[in-house]
Amino acid sequence: MTLHPAVAAVRLGVRRALADVAPGRTVVVACSGGPDSTALLAATVFEGRKAGWHVIGATVDHDLQDGSADRAAALVARMAAIGADETLNARVHVEGGGLGPEAAARRARYAVLEEVGERFDAAAVLLGHTRDDQAETVLLGLARGSGGRSLAGMRRGYDRFVRPLLDVGRADTVTACLVEGLETWDDPHNEDPAYTRARVRHTVLPLLEEQLGPGVASTLARTADQLRSDMDYLDDLAETAYAELRSADGALPVAGLAGRPTPIRHRVLRLAALDAGAPASELFYEHVTAMDALLTDWHGQRWVDLPGPVRCSRSDGRLQLDPVR
Amino acid sequence: MTLHPAVAAVRLGVRRALADVAPGRTVVVACSGGPDSTALLAATVFEGRKAGWHVIGATVDHDLQDGSADRAAALVARMAAIGADETLNARVHVEGGGLGPEAAARRARYAVLEEVGERFDAAAVLLGHTRDDQAETVLLGLARGSGGRSLAGMRRGYDRFVRPLLDVGRADTVTACLVEGLETWDDPHNEDPAYTRARVRHTVLPLLEEQLGPGVASTLARTADQLRSDMDYLDDLAETAYAELRSADGALPVAGLAGRPTPIRHRVLRLAALDAGAPASELFYEHVTAMDALLTDWHGQRWVDLPGPVRCSRSDGRLQLDPVR
Repeated sequence: MTLHPAVAAVRLGVRRALADVAPGRTVVVACSGGPDSTALLAATVFEGRKAGWHVIGATVDHDLQDGSADRAAALVARMAAIGADETLNARVHVEGGGLGPEAAARRARYAVLEEVGERFDAAAVLLGHTRDDQAETVLLGLARGSGGRSLAGMRRGYDRFVRPLLDVGRADTVTACLVEGLETWDDPHNEDPAYTRARVRHTVLPLLEEQLGPGVASTLARTADQLRSDMDYLDDLAETAYAELRSADGALPVAGLAGRPTPIRHRVLRLAALDAGAPASELFYEHVTAMDALLTDWHGQRWVDLPGPVRCSRSDGRLQLDPVR
Repeated sequence: MTLHPAVAAVRLGVRRALADVAPGRTVVVACSGGPDSTALLAATVFEGRKAGWHVIGATVDHDLQDGSADRAAALVARMAAIGADETLNARVHVEGGGLGPEAAARRARYAVLEEVGERFDAAAVLLGHTRDDQAETVLLGLARGSGGRSLAGMRRGYDRFVRPLLDVGRADTVTACLVEGLETWDDPHNEDPAYTRARVRHTVLPLLEEQLGPGVASTLARTADQLRSDMDYLDDLAETAYAELRSADGALPVAGLAGRPTPIRHRVLRLAALDAGAPASELFYEHVTAMDALLTDWHGQRWVDLPGPVRCSRSDGRLQLDPVR
């Protein structure tokens, strides 16, 4: 019996992402019962037996739909059948707190998974996001704001969280479950067009693939990888420059800043505006370029008003950023 | 009579882009007869009278459709009526040369406009691309390759070419022509769905605006601006690093390169592969990451094969890139 390529692809993702996890360590797999996380759990169980990990299958019951407790119980049984060394079902209560239902559920889910990871001192908490999820995230980023950062997608890992399937297509996880005879269900949220992500998945991405040619999802995912590393590096350079330039009272010297390259200058101005109290969610590219004009296109204008409100003013060869009282 | 905001927006674009053009200089406006370039010509004539420029309206007859000579003659008359100091109609013969019809026509058009700019010693040759064109270019870039560069869109200017309307929406150029009573026609290419750009314009962008919310075109155009400046800077840093690291025989020292940040390392490897003869159109991100693994994930692998063919091999603490004979 030869190994099916889809199963191999999922296992390779796990093996690569967890190459440094030592025998005896615990690995938590977040499982929704969908094909992505079910294939991820099966692959982690397989690799974990070879590597000597303790694999915990964890599901989070958001208690949002009728029958969700029954579903969670069925999923716990499935995870055990797949071979998880331990299974866990955490029920959470989702409160909006000003967020949309999608964002509120996600926040609750990540909080409980983080807590589980900590409780078990897990080497990693695995999330089943695929290359298609990454492409969708990039497209959603388009709608949220401009610049490379908005297109940089999801990180491969942060804190304990690791996403081993970002190079694996969703179709491969579906196939892997089929050939391994693993039952799955679709998350009802994924099908509901009220959720923007569902619209991107079912309408936007298919149309892009049809109109621009196949492979758009892979291209978007690869773009995100490159942009993340590019943006992290530019942000690091800008933070260093900001620390060098900023005086004790928070002002920036025009002479020292104006000579820096545009990507650094713009980022330093953004950092200074945030430090002065401008909220990140309201600080746009137009604000940054308006501040920049005080440096590079100055013809006597005195100040720029920013959200917060914060005022950025130029005097005596310095840019001063102050909250307006 | 107050100035209509659409007319003001187009004029502002011209004024900003040509702020440095001295009185007496010649400005060529490339005009297809469509609303974008017609509004651009009218605004340039208006600003040119104040600034003392000699404004030439130039149209290029691609000789691709029946009646194109008649259209060109009508357009020349219109450009004169708009107030161009001089008009010019250049007929070109479009040869494919392995390019698609869209690309071949564009190449022929730019070549003749460049020649015209040179002949008249023009301070600038203006192109009517709008914010919507920029958004389309970014989306087309998605289909062509990965990374920030593929999403960086069109430059605001290069050589003599200047694009004053990249911050102006297409709707504003249409409105500006309407309120100024300027007759325009649509380029038949723009409507033909055989052209990928036409599909992006008529199908992809409207769907993105509908599904992700209005303002996607502006966001894409702003993203392109930021990415262009970010990518230019990273490319500059990488070229400097490449010049520092490269030895006389073209090899790269593992120790010197491995410690550089990922965005620089990847770009240096790409430059080295291009110098060794790998064709840019076939050199993909996978090739760069495979070369990078010789530096950062080396477990004895000897070489990586690249298109060209070029071989990148590691020995004696050096990466060597050689054409395979």
